[in-house]
Amino acid sequence: MLTYSFENKGNDTLYEYLYKQIKKDIISRKLIPNEKLPSKRMLAKHLNISTITVETAYSQLIAEGYIYSVPKSGFYVCEIETGGTFEEYIPFDRNRPVSDSRDISGKFGGILTKRMEQGVDKEDEQKDRYYADFVNNRAVSENFPFATWTKLMRDVMADDTARLLNRPPSAGIYELRCAIADYLYQFRGMSVAPEQIVVGAGTEYLYGLIIQLLGHDMCYGVEDPGYQKIFRIYQAHHVRCSHIAMDENGINMDALYESGADVLHISPSHHFPTGLVTPISRRYELLSWASKSPERFIIEDEYDSEFRLTGRPIPSLQSIDVSDKVIYINTFSKSLASTIRISYMVLPKTLMERYRRELSFYACTVSNFDQYTLTAFINDGYLEKHINRMRNYYRALRDMILNDIKKHKWYDRITIKEENAGLHFLLKLSTDYDDNEIVRRAAENGIHISCLSQYYYDVKSAVLHTLVINYSGIGMEYAEEAIDRLFRSLFTD
Amino acid sequence: MLTYSFENKGNDTLYEYLYKQIKKDIISRKLIPNEKLPSKRMLAKHLNISTITVETAYSQLIAEGYIYSVPKSGFYVCEIETGGTFEEYIPFDRNRPVSDSRDISGKFGGILTKRMEQGVDKEDEQKDRYYADFVNNRAVSENFPFATWTKLMRDVMADDTARLLNRPPSAGIYELRCAIADYLYQFRGMSVAPEQIVVGAGTEYLYGLIIQLLGHDMCYGVEDPGYQKIFRIYQAHHVRCSHIAMDENGINMDALYESGADVLHISPSHHFPTGLVTPISRRYELLSWASKSPERFIIEDEYDSEFRLTGRPIPSLQSIDVSDKVIYINTFSKSLASTIRISYMVLPKTLMERYRRELSFYACTVSNFDQYTLTAFINDGYLEKHINRMRNYYRALRDMILNDIKKHKWYDRITIKEENAGLHFLLKLSTDYDDNEIVRRAAENGIHISCLSQYYYDVKSAVLHTLVINYSGIGMEYAEEAIDRLFRSLFTD
Repeated sequence: MLTYSFENKGNDTLYEYLYKQIKKDIISRKLIPNEKLPSKRMLAKHLNISTITVETAYSQLIAEGYIYSVPKSGFYVCEIETGGTFEEYIPFDRNRPVSDSRDISGKFGGILTKRMEQGVDKEDEQKDRYYADFVNNRAVSENFPFATWTKLMRDVMADDTARLLNRPPSAGIYELRCAIADYLYQFRGMSVAPEQIVVGAGTEYLYGLIIQLLGHDMCYGVEDPGYQKIFRIYQAHHVRCSHIAMDENGINMDALYESGADVLHISPSHHFPTGLVTPISRRYELLSWASKSPERFIIEDEYDSEFRLTGRPIPSLQSIDVSDKVIYINTFSKSLASTIRISYMVLPKTLMERYRRELSFYACTVSNFDQYTLTAFINDGYLEKHINRMRNYYRALRDMILNDIKKHKWYDRITIKEENAGLHFLLKLSTDYDDNEIVRRAAENGIHISCLSQYYYDVKSAVLHTLVINYSGIGMEYAEEAIDRLFRSLFTD
Repeated sequence: MLTYSFENKGNDTLYEYLYKQIKKDIISRKLIPNEKLPSKRMLAKHLNISTITVETAYSQLIAEGYIYSVPKSGFYVCEIETGGTFEEYIPFDRNRPVSDSRDISGKFGGILTKRMEQGVDKEDEQKDRYYADFVNNRAVSENFPFATWTKLMRDVMADDTARLLNRPPSAGIYELRCAIADYLYQFRGMSVAPEQIVVGAGTEYLYGLIIQLLGHDMCYGVEDPGYQKIFRIYQAHHVRCSHIAMDENGINMDALYESGADVLHISPSHHFPTGLVTPISRRYELLSWASKSPERFIIEDEYDSEFRLTGRPIPSLQSIDVSDKVIYINTFSKSLASTIRISYMVLPKTLMERYRRELSFYACTVSNFDQYTLTAFINDGYLEKHINRMRNYYRALRDMILNDIKKHKWYDRITIKEENAGLHFLLKLSTDYDDNEIVRRAAENGIHISCLSQYYYDVKSAVLHTLVINYSGIGMEYAEEAIDRLFRSLFTD
């Protein structure tokens, strides 16, 4: 049972101290989600305090969302969910219970300590726990153009109330799809008809639509290393999923042909976590692969292409595809704010026809309010301005952090890699610590960090001793100290 | 090729007349969705008019969303989507191409004329086509409390901008889940913890989550007769789906046991289209069925329980379930407006734990803006007021229509059934016309109507000669004339 000594409670009342201790254990995952807590009476007896004290502590924990009560059953620990915009950066949790453990239980190596890599819910908890977080890169909220968004929303509401109550077409309101098509043409050089665009409440929802569209019998290929979340979504839909090795130019073609994948889900313009940009020659090889079977398709996932900070822009796969093989997918939740749940996909003509036939009975998942507001936001040029501002901000932040690294006395012990990738880069370390130890030591020094190896499904192939530096959520004023803490946790004179 | 005579063009210019003719053919489904139109040059040549005339007509059709162009390919007919709030009322389209035709192609009888029953997109088209529509019951938009909603949205935006940018928990913001729990307690007598509630962008999205939660290997049982849409969603997810016959008390228990269904998806408090309310004894039988296997669950879909106008309220299945077998699902899109995409489900404790483990990595699909606005709308009592106002409005409308029927000189040729069902009732006809002919004759008289038989999957069991009167979208001023037209299309002296 939970055991706490009250010796160090200082000026806290008994209940305040108990509440803080339990909260700490929940945040640190000593108490795990959905774990049952002892009854009030039992815990009071065990700790030799009054039931009222336990009750007051539990009440506060309920009010703050750390525990929940189930009538006639007891008290349970809440799932403390990951915050931040860039939640997909979470590495594989190798101790996570999975729905179909037969598939992967033998595969995951377990180089990480239990649940260590999962994030926590609230800003202040994050601060409690880490001085700086290079894993869960929450967007800096001051950067959201809130006043503009509010103004446009008001305009939309004042404008024409009747049209807000019309049921939008399944694929989204036509005006928004036109605005997106224009935007893609201007900023990505893509020629897309508004009729090819499907708007939905988040990319995760759209992935589910794509599975319904292409079929549950297909094998979906994902990048290794890569996002855990994309894999989990395919897994939740009970479709076959194959992890395909990458080489220095992106998806390895031999691995792709051997994988048995029908549908390839990739981010060729900006791969996470390696930062790779797939060159044009490999892009043609990928299209060639797709063209060899009518069942094959490529999902081109450009989640944060707006934030590639340098380098020659490479045409999207979608724009060089003449065989109707590429589904292009992108989101406004990354470029604006994660709470604006608007994403979109561009379907090739044949698939758009299939969508109209088979899936257009679905209602659009985004409210009219949000669709009209975003339309105005794009058409009035605010999106472009916002992205430019953010790009400048991230460039300055990146330069500052790189500078802090380069001027550090132990700079000779690391190598900076892929520094032109969007919102992250890699640091190759000269160290004898294994990756598990690296993460642990950094955490002890208040730095939340992940290693490249944590994003591999096939742990035997994992590149070791390489940090992934997701810097976009680090406040500029903390950068120098954060880098110094990181270095000091890994090196000594 | 499209052939139009320009003799009757009256005062219209050539292009206006051509535009109207093509539009008419699209609305009447002579031209079907995604059908390719002749090229501008070909059509001009064929009709002996100038290419510019065709081009102008096509441009206007594109602008109004009737056709779309695909670069380097040509012009195609748009899917004219169903409008209105009550889109699920659409009966089975027996000519619809289905994704897995092996399952059902042999089953659909085809008592309906091709595509006749599909609705159209815009209010004015609807008006063009029908004097009154008893199939697609769009909500009357003046009834939406727009000023209140706008005011609350502004308050929310002014209130605390930072919290709007926090990523909401996967299941929805806690405040909204508390408001829903309170609402269910007050108005439905249900004791539900906020932690059991999952908020999502529409019931259709939640059905998809349920499939991911319960598994793709389950067989899902749906009501026959019933909604087409629910069946289509299971079909789109490629899960087995079984149609289960109803008797006078709801789902027939023998049919249920024989069906092999694991998960039963029903609306026991208000079945569409029969209007049946499942009595308490049958409810216990259903729960007993569910309790006999750990795999079995019941989805209790209460899409418009707020609008049952009379009759003793019967406890929800969820509230008499002590075995954690019932998933309760409901939506605000029906009670408020279809463009507000907020629905919710209440999961039993065991499934909520499974949700937290396996699916809480999904981001919530509803924006924070909408979640906070709805929270205020519920907590400030506006939802209750709105539902009461709507209930009074519908009661008055129903009484007026029933009165128009009862005073009609041919009242002796029909029998009113289930007049206490929510937003629809049934009319049993004494007629020799078959149901197909009934629908056709009513349409000729400007009345869009559906027959009970159209909602059956097993056409052999279909109850014939029974109209489904969805009255909620009929303006009060049109009611008397609509009923008279309907009667005159079916009876003569």
